[in-house]
Amino acid sequence: MSNPVEEFNAYRSKMNDKILADNNKIIKRIFNLDTNAFSKGALDVKTKELLGLVASTVLRCDDCVKYHLESSYKEGISKEEVMETLSIATLIGGTIVIPHLRRAYEYWETLEDNQG
Amino acid sequence: MSNPVEEFNAYRSKMNDKILADNNKIIKRIFNLDTNAFSKGALDVKTKELLGLVASTVLRCDDCVKYHLESSYKEGISKEEVMETLSIATLIGGTIVIPHLRRAYEYWETLEDNQG
Amino acid sequence: MSNPVEEFNAYRSKMNDKILADNNKIIKRIFNLDTNAFSKGALDVKTKELLGLVASTVLRCDDCVKYHLESSYKEGISKEEVMETLSIATLIGGTIVIPHLRRAYEYWETLEDNQG
Amino acid sequence: MSNPVEEFNAYRSKMNDKILADNNKIIKRIFNLDTNAFSKGALDVKTKELLGLVASTVLRCDDCVKYHLESSYKEGISKEEVMETLSIATLIGGTIVIPHLRRAYEYWETLEDNQG
Amino acid sequence: MSNPVEEFNAYRSKMNDKILADNNKIIKRIFNLDTNAFSKGALDVKTKELLGLVASTVLRCDDCVKYHLESSYKEGISKEEVMETLSIATLIGGTIVIPHLRRAYEYWETLEDNQG
Amino acid sequence: MSNPVEEFNAYRSKMNDKILADNNKIIKRIFNLDTNAFSKGALDVKTKELLGLVASTVLRCDDCVKYHLESSYKEGISKEEVMETLSIATLIGGTIVIPHLRRAYEYWETLEDNQG
Repeated sequence: MSNPVEEFNAYRSKMNDKILADNNKIIKRIFNLDTNAFSKGALDVKTKELLGLVASTVLRCDDCVKYHLESSYKEGISKEEVMETLSIATLIGGTIVIPHLRRAYEYWETLEDNQG
Repeated sequence: MSNPVEEFNAYRSKMNDKILADNNKIIKRIFNLDTNAFSKGALDVKTKELLGLVASTVLRCDDCVKYHLESSYKEGISKEEVMETLSIATLIGGTIVIPHLRRAYEYWETLEDNQG
Repeated sequence: MSNPVEEFNAYRSKMNDKILADNNKIIKRIFNLDTNAFSKGALDVKTKELLGLVASTVLRCDDCVKYHLESSYKEGISKEEVMETLSIATLIGGTIVIPHLRRAYEYWETLEDNQG
Repeated sequence: MSNPVEEFNAYRSKMNDKILADNNKIIKRIFNLDTNAFSKGALDVKTKELLGLVASTVLRCDDCVKYHLESSYKEGISKEEVMETLSIATLIGGTIVIPHLRRAYEYWETLEDNQG
Repeated sequence: MSNPVEEFNAYRSKMNDKILADNNKIIKRIFNLDTNAFSKGALDVKTKELLGLVASTVLRCDDCVKYHLESSYKEGISKEEVMETLSIATLIGGTIVIPHLRRAYEYWETLEDNQG
Repeated sequence: MSNPVEEFNAYRSKMNDKILADNNKIIKRIFNLDTNAFSKGALDVKTKELLGLVASTVLRCDDCVKYHLESSYKEGISKEEVMETLSIATLIGGTIVIPHLRRAYEYWETLEDNQG
């Protein structure tokens, strides 16, 4: 049976594959950079994931939030650390962030439930 | 039978309860401020609701718009007043506001129909 | 049978008609301007459609993107030209544009399929 | 001697005149709408000015904030009412609004000082 | 004697050089992409410059607007074409774009005057 | 002799004092939250400062960026860590972030020079 995490990932993969097959050089390089930017450097992967999460949240990009929540989950970041990151996003970005906070919280629960 | 207003409110309440139960101090205080900011002060409640509505609309936050539409409806604000507020939002925020205007208009109709 | 393009257009038309019937002068004039701004002037219609598309994409307005994709399609703009426009949007607007790029790509495919 | 309010208004008038003399029909009509939207309708002028102020503030447009602060001042809106409006903007738009709040507060003081 | 165009370009070059000398791989590649994206492809350079201009304007990035105004000027794009592009930006992005329109208009005048 | 860091801090303090003296309860509480959110919790202060920096940068708030650059500097965060954070901001937020990156880089240099 499908669930929200699998559905999101399946759609994301399917469309990314189509877009990359289209061979637009600029888009391909941006997708590539996206992979590189979150690998270990002066900052560790965990910190970078939280940077990606807070930036996605203040910019109110639900799909970007989902992506970084799943990566954060896989990196072993705790729920408390995620919530502190989201609280900073809500303070900096204001109450318009709250609807995205609700959806983020729900998605995190699904990630945890999938594990059960 | 459920309708869009009830569905929105049910999801909103369920997730707010979960988030608040999580005890993140910053988030709890922001939720609290949100309740206080729209109560009577130098400005009356009606004016404050319209301020919340126009700000939510130019920031293109559908859920925030729905919330302030329902509060406005309960405060007895007229459709004409709501439309003037939304027209100012569309002028200031530009034609990218129009898709949100369509959804706002539809939600207002549901609020009126629920009453019937 | 309905498809995503028809559904989008039907909802858009229905709500626009209701909003315009409501006789708010400011909103009516903005809708009117929207029609005028994309007609031939110093710039041709094709260039203007691409301007509308790139602006809608960086502002992450899915419905505006759909609208300009359909107009672009009807103007005979090629998929390659659309992709270059979307690549500029993704570079200027950043990776938060990517979820909208996925939906734009899918919508363009539907436009092509409808034609088949 | 010039002061910040006069300087802002002089630059604004000079550039608006040049832009309008250029005879772009779309721009002329938008400028025109801007005048109409804030005149008395179902909502009074004072409420509309506050709507313009809160929308400009959450969108972090310093020049738009200045414009609506001066109109608000001329309409006899009190400092307390302005501050409540700005507090709603800061809550909805988040702490990134604070730098604009500082400049708004300073501009309001200049408006009051000019009167003295 | 320095003028606004020269000052802007000098600061831009100086800081870009410093940033690139710093050897952050992600930033270097983004700067690189920026050069590539606006070169001739399915779309000609002139159309791409106008795409860059309208996107920068709706995103209210004065420095990006200046950059694309100068490139547009060098490509031989006419004032009327620039104004149509800016009018579409103002319609889509709303009246909060107007302060940026004033500064764009002034910068275009400087570009023309420098030529004199 | 004054320098950009001192000037920024002096203006910021002066206006914050005035705004807080005005006794608007909502604004006072938001200022208060801002202090609390960046103190040690599940995440350490250094990580939180970088979260504040990346969020401020993608939202293109120069004053917020300056504030978090100074706090980061005082926390002993290295230039390389700051640059990685800013590179993630530029990737996620797009090339419209670049003008803010230039000003951030310049401000960091001033922070280092002040120390010399």
